[in-house]
Amino acid sequence: MRRHHHRCQIGSDSETGSESDSDTDTPMRCISCREEYLPRNAGTCKECYVEAGETEEELKREIDDLKAKVAFLRLSSSLDHGTSSTSRSFTDVVLIASEDNAGSPPIPAHKSVLVSRSPVFKAMLENEMEESLSGTIKISDVSYDALRTFVYYLYTAEACLDEQMACDLLVMSEKYQVKHLKSYCERFLVTKLSPDNSLMTYAFAHQHNAKHVLDAALSQIVENMDKLTKREEYMELVEKDPRLIVEIYEAYLSKQVNTAAGGTSTSKTS
Amino acid sequence: MRRHHHRCQIGSDSETGSESDSDTDTPMRCISCREEYLPRNAGTCKECYVEAGETEEELKREIDDLKAKVAFLRLSSSLDHGTSSTSRSFTDVVLIASEDNAGSPPIPAHKSVLVSRSPVFKAMLENEMEESLSGTIKISDVSYDALRTFVYYLYTAEACLDEQMACDLLVMSEKYQVKHLKSYCERFLVTKLSPDNSLMTYAFAHQHNAKHVLDAALSQIVENMDKLTKREEYMELVEKDPRLIVEIYEAYLSKQVNTAAGGTSTSKTS
Repeated sequence: MRRHHHRCQIGSDSETGSESDSDTDTPMRCISCREEYLPRNAGTCKECYVEAGETEEELKREIDDLKAKVAFLRLSSSLDHGTSSTSRSFTDVVLIASEDNAGSPPIPAHKSVLVSRSPVFKAMLENEMEESLSGTIKISDVSYDALRTFVYYLYTAEACLDEQMACDLLVMSEKYQVKHLKSYCERFLVTKLSPDNSLMTYAFAHQHNAKHVLDAALSQIVENMDKLTKREEYMELVEKDPRLIVEIYEAYLSKQVNTAAGGTSTSKTS
Repeated sequence: MRRHHHRCQIGSDSETGSESDSDTDTPMRCISCREEYLPRNAGTCKECYVEAGETEEELKREIDDLKAKVAFLRLSSSLDHGTSSTSRSFTDVVLIASEDNAGSPPIPAHKSVLVSRSPVFKAMLENEMEESLSGTIKISDVSYDALRTFVYYLYTAEACLDEQMACDLLVMSEKYQVKHLKSYCERFLVTKLSPDNSLMTYAFAHQHNAKHVLDAALSQIVENMDKLTKREEYMELVEKDPRLIVEIYEAYLSKQVNTAAGGTSTSKTS
């Protein structure tokens, strides 16, 4: 495949501008969107544009290959088929949600899968601990639904999340060290951040060591700092964990200082 | 994320040319490669170019996500650790290569994985056939190395191929209906096609129902048709399977006719 030696990068406006000062300002038409533009605003020559299109095609092909690989590697868990065919899927362990042990059924699984996905399950099952001998793993402080979703994720790398489920799974993924699931939940929670839930999310992220959520929640809070002290959760957090509130004020102060510095340099150049 | 409503496509030269006839031909400079170009050769306006760059970034992020997913879903097979820790990986079946059953060790595996990957293993293991009861699957006409690589692929979707191994695995993947592996082998064999091996590869692909390899080998042969009848494999194939040779001549004839038609229309328009 033909390829330029350079990689495409956006050059600075001023540079391009100065070199095309002698151009007339007759409008031209973009070959992709058909909109008119002045020569001085031109983006790329045709060669670079074609190259970018080829790169896009290649990347899309790679994505298709990877998707097929994921579909191949995804295992069918006992949950794919309901409980009836469980006996046929060669499971050798069951998981039980301790929170509602009254009625919900045990969830069958394969030791080999649990061991592949989680170093905690690995230690538990490979070292003749109680769980390995009995073939039963009790998971504490979790609902049947959350456990079911957790096990399903271990087989398929897929989960249908809402905010509650994302929090539940984040806690489990932290406990059983399933990194891939933890980062999946973190990304979901970041998309759900709002000024209204940012303080609670921040506290939750702190408790469960979720760095990305923590950072995102903190910026959200700092941006809406004026309303901070009026919030109920604020009062609660001051009572319960004042250090967290201190961190918020530190982040706010640091932003104020940076903005002031940035503002000064802008006014100098203009 | 900002996004244009249009999708970028290369417009026709003539159209762009006619619209910019009034432009001066002062050279401009591409903002990506810094090379000069005439305004009439410009590729995109800056907005489209920036958008193309953003698309590339998005696609690359998606690729990273998918790669992480593949790494998560990939299972550790007993082959990852050598044979010593086999007892710890909860295997419940062994595979034996019948071709060299003298010395090579059985390969431990998990029924659940074999069943997920191959409908043939599924039928074999779920229906209380001999293999399911004994926990031993004998694979005929295959070397220990090929079987080992086959099993490894079922766990990881990865294999280190040479031409012989790609052929061996293609045969196995056809037999056990592991589509993902078959297409992996096909793509490998297509990259290895040359005028020297095209006839043999063509016959092999025909025998094992490998459509992509078949098509690629056929075009390779048809392009080098002048040397065809001098080849030793040609004589052999005429003896062994003359129908295949007929298909080659049909493809050649069809190409000749199309080229002639193409040539005529070209001479008309010029």
